[in-house]
Amino acid sequence: MSYEVAALARLIEQFERLPGIGRKTAQRLAFHVLNLSEQEAKAFAEAIAQAHQKIRRCSVCCNLSEGELCPICARSGRDKSTICVVEDPRDVMAIERTHEYNGVYHVLHGVISPMNGIGPEELTVKELLARMNSDVKEVIMATNPTVEGEATAMYLSRLLKPLGVAVSRLAYGVPVGADLEYADEVTLLRAIEGRQEL
Amino acid sequence: MSYEVAALARLIEQFERLPGIGRKTAQRLAFHVLNLSEQEAKAFAEAIAQAHQKIRRCSVCCNLSEGELCPICARSGRDKSTICVVEDPRDVMAIERTHEYNGVYHVLHGVISPMNGIGPEELTVKELLARMNSDVKEVIMATNPTVEGEATAMYLSRLLKPLGVAVSRLAYGVPVGADLEYADEVTLLRAIEGRQEL
Repeated sequence: MSYEVAALARLIEQFERLPGIGRKTAQRLAFHVLNLSEQEAKAFAEAIAQAHQKIRRCSVCCNLSEGELCPICARSGRDKSTICVVEDPRDVMAIERTHEYNGVYHVLHGVISPMNGIGPEELTVKELLARMNSDVKEVIMATNPTVEGEATAMYLSRLLKPLGVAVSRLAYGVPVGADLEYADEVTLLRAIEGRQEL
Repeated sequence: MSYEVAALARLIEQFERLPGIGRKTAQRLAFHVLNLSEQEAKAFAEAIAQAHQKIRRCSVCCNLSEGELCPICARSGRDKSTICVVEDPRDVMAIERTHEYNGVYHVLHGVISPMNGIGPEELTVKELLARMNSDVKEVIMATNPTVEGEATAMYLSRLLKPLGVAVSRLAYGVPVGADLEYADEVTLLRAIEGRQEL
């Protein structure tokens, strides 16, 4: 029988579909929602519905945006001659948190992954190439340091270099604050290869 | 800056308010919602809004219900002479999963907890007493085996016994499938005290 209250069963089911949420957690979340005030529950429901309706892709960098242009592309102070290519909107936020990068972004919305049937057509590669004009000086590849991220960066650099644009890649090395003892061999090797003068 | 897309920021904030959901998980869930189809997102939002509007307390047992009576109280086959008193609607579901108990329930919606300012008035004690008529033969206390659950069971049994109804308590003992080695002393002591003839 489990939950005979249909509205509750539906709510639990919805929570259960979220990534990393199992049956027990879904129940806990559903009961939490029941204990919210009328107004709070309404705000939650609206946030879900609205996020879905209002958010689309920036027409320039393909990042998530409520308007035609995302806030980063729209801002006049950003250096439009440097484009940082990332896999995902979350990576944009991660880089923005450094408060140092002042260029713009291009969000691929994935990586090339033949195993999963994802080729360059499924990503925003066409949109990236369309941005290559004489104003663009450098493209920084900031895909993840995984096999697929690397392959995607390599693929894009081969497309971009003939267009006369400088293509760079994020530096590899040991993470700040980490313990050398726990660094894997490949990272350590890359850190040694990329050593810098003090 | 973090999320400059307001609709996304609102959604993340809503998820972050859920119990046990931190910032990172809230982001992951929000991005998952963005990747849902229009229809799926709508169903999720509606499940939240509707659960809140539609679900109320059963007028007899105070369990969650969409109608005046919960499905258990409404069913004619249930034995109305045995009432199992639990703290929470989730406990009803746990006992229902045994598929053995055929009586009805009474949901207290909490336990007496002077530390948190919860007295019998905050619980559904009045509603429980109102159910005590000549048809009721037994009340089973199934509050949690915690200090507060015990105290609540004791309190209620003192109220109910003078009304001429039998009051019982769930058996204590080692959980089925558990390892004796890992059982705590109190549980083990209760299991020895409550030993049954083979």
